[in-house]
Amino acid sequence: MSIEPAKILLVEDDPNDVELIQLAFESYNFVNQLDIATDGEQALHYLHGQPGEPPTQPTPRLVLLDLKIPKIDGIQVLQAIRNHPQTRELVVVVMTSSAESQDLSACYELGANSYIVKPLDFQQFINVARQVGFYWMMLNHVPTQE
Amino acid sequence: MSIEPAKILLVEDDPNDVELIQLAFESYNFVNQLDIATDGEQALHYLHGQPGEPPTQPTPRLVLLDLKIPKIDGIQVLQAIRNHPQTRELVVVVMTSSAESQDLSACYELGANSYIVKPLDFQQFINVARQVGFYWMMLNHVPTQE
Repeated sequence: MSIEPAKILLVEDDPNDVELIQLAFESYNFVNQLDIATDGEQALHYLHGQPGEPPTQPTPRLVLLDLKIPKIDGIQVLQAIRNHPQTRELVVVVMTSSAESQDLSACYELGANSYIVKPLDFQQFINVARQVGFYWMMLNHVPTQE
Repeated sequence: MSIEPAKILLVEDDPNDVELIQLAFESYNFVNQLDIATDGEQALHYLHGQPGEPPTQPTPRLVLLDLKIPKIDGIQVLQAIRNHPQTRELVVVVMTSSAESQDLSACYELGANSYIVKPLDFQQFINVARQVGFYWMMLNHVPTQE
């Protein structure tokens, strides 16, 4: 069993949104547990590794996934996470500006745990991100990682 | 589109836990939106109907599912929800006293959205239930129901 604090992987290409989420997580000290991937390819390399490079360990406890990201979009990243035996049960929370019904359906269909629409107002965004972090890091339980 | 408030289906056989969850939800007025099934069979009749009786409408926005319930256990209820085309994408939050690794794995494997271990302390239980209600009813988005 690891004594390292659980990690959060934030998949987000917008530096402003990254900063707001970092601000939100400072109040819980989650900020030190945050790793950032700025496109879908980076996210999948982090989670699944690539030839000659193992996945980053430990597997994060939570993935916060934007949908509109470069290289491989969020829906394809979610699909790859659910199709891979090592990440099939990973908690994936979609955090996106899209409230489109087809994105919502596609994400739940593919097994997203939750779908959060980013508020436009900065302070509301920080509040929502804080509540998302608290819920998934402090209230929700996940199987113990080997 | 319906103007009725979204429903929550609580599947719970312990009257004390039902009462604590009702108390928790009073602060958000969710309490009027709460329907209760006290065993797995009732829950599935509510969600899927039975011969000569259609499912209860509208489909709830959230199912809070205890695992140790009479007739059909919570894991089988979860499986039936995910296997049924009308409820495949329904938000199911497991709320149970079990923190056993095999229950956690089975629930995530079957597509539970979240897994909450009920605190033993009454006040903590109420606080957690309130946060669970707030997260899933106020922050999380689901596809619009037709």
